[in-house]
Amino acid sequence: MTTSETPTDNGVNVQALLDARTALTDAPEAAQFTWRASNQWLRGTHSRSAITGFFGLGAEHNHRSSWSFDADHPEVFASEDNGPTPVEYVLVGLASCLTAGVAAVAQNRGIQLNAVKATIEGDMDVLGILGADPDVRNGFNGIRVHYEIDADATPEEIEALVAQSQKRSAVYDVITNPVNVTVEVA
Amino acid sequence: MTTSETPTDNGVNVQALLDARTALTDAPEAAQFTWRASNQWLRGTHSRSAITGFFGLGAEHNHRSSWSFDADHPEVFASEDNGPTPVEYVLVGLASCLTAGVAAVAQNRGIQLNAVKATIEGDMDVLGILGADPDVRNGFNGIRVHYEIDADATPEEIEALVAQSQKRSAVYDVITNPVNVTVEVA
Repeated sequence: MTTSETPTDNGVNVQALLDARTALTDAPEAAQFTWRASNQWLRGTHSRSAITGFFGLGAEHNHRSSWSFDADHPEVFASEDNGPTPVEYVLVGLASCLTAGVAAVAQNRGIQLNAVKATIEGDMDVLGILGADPDVRNGFNGIRVHYEIDADATPEEIEALVAQSQKRSAVYDVITNPVNVTVEVA
Repeated sequence: MTTSETPTDNGVNVQALLDARTALTDAPEAAQFTWRASNQWLRGTHSRSAITGFFGLGAEHNHRSSWSFDADHPEVFASEDNGPTPVEYVLVGLASCLTAGVAAVAQNRGIQLNAVKATIEGDMDVLGILGADPDVRNGFNGIRVHYEIDADATPEEIEALVAQSQKRSAVYDVITNPVNVTVEVA
């Protein structure tokens, strides 16, 4: 482990998060968040989603910007590939959640990060979504995430960062454990 | 139900999908796909993901374009809100998957869609990710999807479209059922 003379600065305000933990423990109703997206069909398998705001700390919030995301199926599925597939958005969510966690945990542990890169792969047997084999699931058979991390820390400390990030990751939980989804039509 | 004199055209090539189902049933190794993303930490909880290609039909494929997605935490978490939160990307994935399915199923059933809109909300108690309460999960407590669909069909037929889309949705499966995720560090 390299001891640095400058304070660890990964750009995460850990003190604010620790303060929030204390404040929200005392006011648990403020910890109830609702995240949202809207989606509009364009044509074929092509749709556009928008993200603008969310609810939390007892109030509505707008993001600093609004974002729009096209999704589509690829040409090998006879579609026009106007955007990533929906399952690729899930991979983006998982990778970005784990990486944010690595940075936050590293800051909390006084470990300076120099570079963090991840690759993520999800295997899928498309006989499931095609309805060709009822024994094949529609979603991923499994997901593999591979991190390369340059930090002022030992390999064991770096492994522990990633393990703690998994332990606190919202998207890791959503993917590895069941979530109830209700779908209704107006 | 309105009977249209023009053929149903939702922009989905259902015949190609039915042909693919037959072909892949005869050559199941070609049905094994791997979807990918890469992710790079920028600073704080801000990271950037890229989507460029995937494996399927026994070969590597590039998407028609490459896409880049910034993710971050919002200002209420003492972050800079440089992109949607990772969990919002998961909502984009679910909504876009279900909408693509509605279009494909409608085409297969000869139902003309005129407009499809969805809103999606995921509830989360952030005491989980803050590590404040071990009995609170990190991910969504539940997700609600609400569709508004204008189609040349009865309300019952429209409900059935959405139900069938759920039944074949990859992302719905990933979220409602467990997926194994392995994370390793180089």
